[in-house]
Amino acid sequence: MKGNIIVGQSGGPTAVINSSLAGVFKTAKERGYSKVYGMRFGILGFIDEQYVDLSDYIKNELDLELLKKTPSSFLGSCRYKLPEIHENKDLYDRIFELLNKLDIEIFIYIGGNDSMDTIKKLSDYALLTGARQRFVGCPKTIDNDLAITDHTPGFGSAAKYIATSTKEVIRDALSFSYKKKNVTIIEIMGRDAGWLVASSALSKQEDCAGPDMIYLPEIPFDVEKFMAKVEGLLKQKDVVVVAVSEGIRTADGTYISALAQTSSSTDAFGHIQLTGTAAYLANLIHTKMNVKTRAVELSSLQRSAGHLASKTDVDEAFAVGGATVKAADEGYSGVMVCIERVSDDPYQSTTKVFDVHRIANDAKLVPRAWINEEGDYVTQELIDYIRPLINGSSAPIMVDGLPRHLVIENKEHDFLSKDIQ
Amino acid sequence: MKGNIIVGQSGGPTAVINSSLAGVFKTAKERGYSKVYGMRFGILGFIDEQYVDLSDYIKNELDLELLKKTPSSFLGSCRYKLPEIHENKDLYDRIFELLNKLDIEIFIYIGGNDSMDTIKKLSDYALLTGARQRFVGCPKTIDNDLAITDHTPGFGSAAKYIATSTKEVIRDALSFSYKKKNVTIIEIMGRDAGWLVASSALSKQEDCAGPDMIYLPEIPFDVEKFMAKVEGLLKQKDVVVVAVSEGIRTADGTYISALAQTSSSTDAFGHIQLTGTAAYLANLIHTKMNVKTRAVELSSLQRSAGHLASKTDVDEAFAVGGATVKAADEGYSGVMVCIERVSDDPYQSTTKVFDVHRIANDAKLVPRAWINEEGDYVTQELIDYIRPLINGSSAPIMVDGLPRHLVIENKEHDFLSKDIQ
Repeated sequence: MKGNIIVGQSGGPTAVINSSLAGVFKTAKERGYSKVYGMRFGILGFIDEQYVDLSDYIKNELDLELLKKTPSSFLGSCRYKLPEIHENKDLYDRIFELLNKLDIEIFIYIGGNDSMDTIKKLSDYALLTGARQRFVGCPKTIDNDLAITDHTPGFGSAAKYIATSTKEVIRDALSFSYKKKNVTIIEIMGRDAGWLVASSALSKQEDCAGPDMIYLPEIPFDVEKFMAKVEGLLKQKDVVVVAVSEGIRTADGTYISALAQTSSSTDAFGHIQLTGTAAYLANLIHTKMNVKTRAVELSSLQRSAGHLASKTDVDEAFAVGGATVKAADEGYSGVMVCIERVSDDPYQSTTKVFDVHRIANDAKLVPRAWINEEGDYVTQELIDYIRPLINGSSAPIMVDGLPRHLVIENKEHDFLSKDIQ
Repeated sequence: MKGNIIVGQSGGPTAVINSSLAGVFKTAKERGYSKVYGMRFGILGFIDEQYVDLSDYIKNELDLELLKKTPSSFLGSCRYKLPEIHENKDLYDRIFELLNKLDIEIFIYIGGNDSMDTIKKLSDYALLTGARQRFVGCPKTIDNDLAITDHTPGFGSAAKYIATSTKEVIRDALSFSYKKKNVTIIEIMGRDAGWLVASSALSKQEDCAGPDMIYLPEIPFDVEKFMAKVEGLLKQKDVVVVAVSEGIRTADGTYISALAQTSSSTDAFGHIQLTGTAAYLANLIHTKMNVKTRAVELSSLQRSAGHLASKTDVDEAFAVGGATVKAADEGYSGVMVCIERVSDDPYQSTTKVFDVHRIANDAKLVPRAWINEEGDYVTQELIDYIRPLINGSSAPIMVDGLPRHLVIENKEHDFLSKDIQ
């Protein structure tokens, strides 16, 4: 008889993080593990003994399907990096005590860079102490910035949302262009890596010209050059659409969003005004060129829009989740499951296992060769790389006109007050 | 042999405005009209002789289906109100001269209040001069503020997008709530009427608590009372989500969005900072209560998200479009086609014709009885009124992972420069 498995979710939400959770649960059951526990709010909640038995929530195939299509972490998440082992050995002992108490054999952590650091440290500690548990990482991040894996689950759905929304925003902007010009700035997530903002280029199809410029955080942003480019474009055309990363910064490293905030901008009540990158640039253009502008922030929707998930992404997230349990069951520890692209056309991928020491704390940026020389658009190679990842629709299960989600409690807004405090 | 029809689109985009256009085209062809012209950019473009023959674009059933699923005005739109007849009779003569030149028998205008004013004035002028053309209005607005009609095509899809996005934003906000609190403010369109912001209440289902408060523009907004309410809620729970209309204003009529802008807020370059309602309130809460806040503006996506259109809305928009041609064909002029709700459960609706003089320039607000006493939420009656309108999914036609649209030109960004200027 095999023991138990525990799984946690960490870092920012994605549309498919729960598809990986569903994959973990299904393979764990198929491989004969007894219980599958879920940490509430990642390792941070687990340290406080916050966990659930997933069988209490996934009671049948429909629940499993609902879980696959529920965005944002079902179990709750955290942003927490474990201290170095030598800094707080007591904490590690506490975690392993809890794991032993629950008869845990396998510990799966679904997340990004910081989460892989957790897998690294816990597997290192197990090696040091001869603990029996095995630790496997499951990649997850819309940012697509994990090393070695071809891409990360979560990215494809965010890219699909971004490309679709960009296309719809362009369509909207075109409708009012008669004898007046307008400029739209779309702000897209990705503080350091430009994969997400690059996805806006996919909106360029037979029926859409796509954005005019795309600014990635990998390239220093020159405000004057940008303004001149917009001014030049407005002489040739009436509708200009620009996609910018929230992380663009000037050559000296100043975030554009910070440019607005370093000013003496206080409101009537004396509070500092916060303005985003898109709002700042839109305002600058409006003031200097006297043209109608609109700032569109895709905001948290780009990571949590389960209603527009990519089927390729949902399926891969599920497969990767299952592969983590398979890897651990076959004896691996201190590894992350990676996606390997087998073929571009037709698109095919498979999973492989890599040492997590090679992955943790390393951020994969967009290569310079995949950005044009001017630094204001992406190359066809980058578009070809992303295109297959947004394919297929994962239709949500609709109830009363809205996507249905699998959730831990009905009155979720209140559960912390009741359960923990 | 019947003559020709001309149809225009006016005012803000919606997800289904082109479904009405498709309905006009189909019924016009079925009823034996010769050509169906489309005005480019509404009456404003038409005055400049900007129009197309719709048969050049709608060549088969697939094109018609694509048009039904293309958001934002296919023909382009304008915001333009005709002068009173006595103010500029020459302009009216010019319009009728063009109509006669094109052998137009029926003039259909798809739009909101201002568009119905256009129908009213042109039909009045035809009466005065004995012109043979008939003028019929086709309702369209996400704002749902047209009189007499039970609701307007475009509203249901916007409501579906708003309710879905609210649900996904709440799910996102819940994931990081372990031992820390957060407040999200969602800003929703509707400057005067609160129908759209009210739609956020539909997110409340078995699997979602919905927003904590909903602020409509119909009720004066009290900043101090709002802040006290948020503070009180944060003592009981960890995640607070509030939906606000972009049009909320204080008792003396000051827009909340203007509160931020009346300040001395200038950036490093000396430009005035523009901040939205949600950003303003989120910043206020963050500063006063030291809690993490997020402002989410649904922006132009709530009116142009064809990918999440309501099937009920798409079908009704199509039916209403067809009904305008039928009405004109049967001799009506100076009327708008209204939707009449026949039954709530099962939901059924039909169309009726009403005198446009009773509709134009009149805005339908949310009745006080459908807002709670406190003025910070909506009643069950309002939810029951909206619920059937968001039902059913109108799956977009997907190509390479993205919704495909029917468009007038490939290189749309450029067409004005080429065609007009």
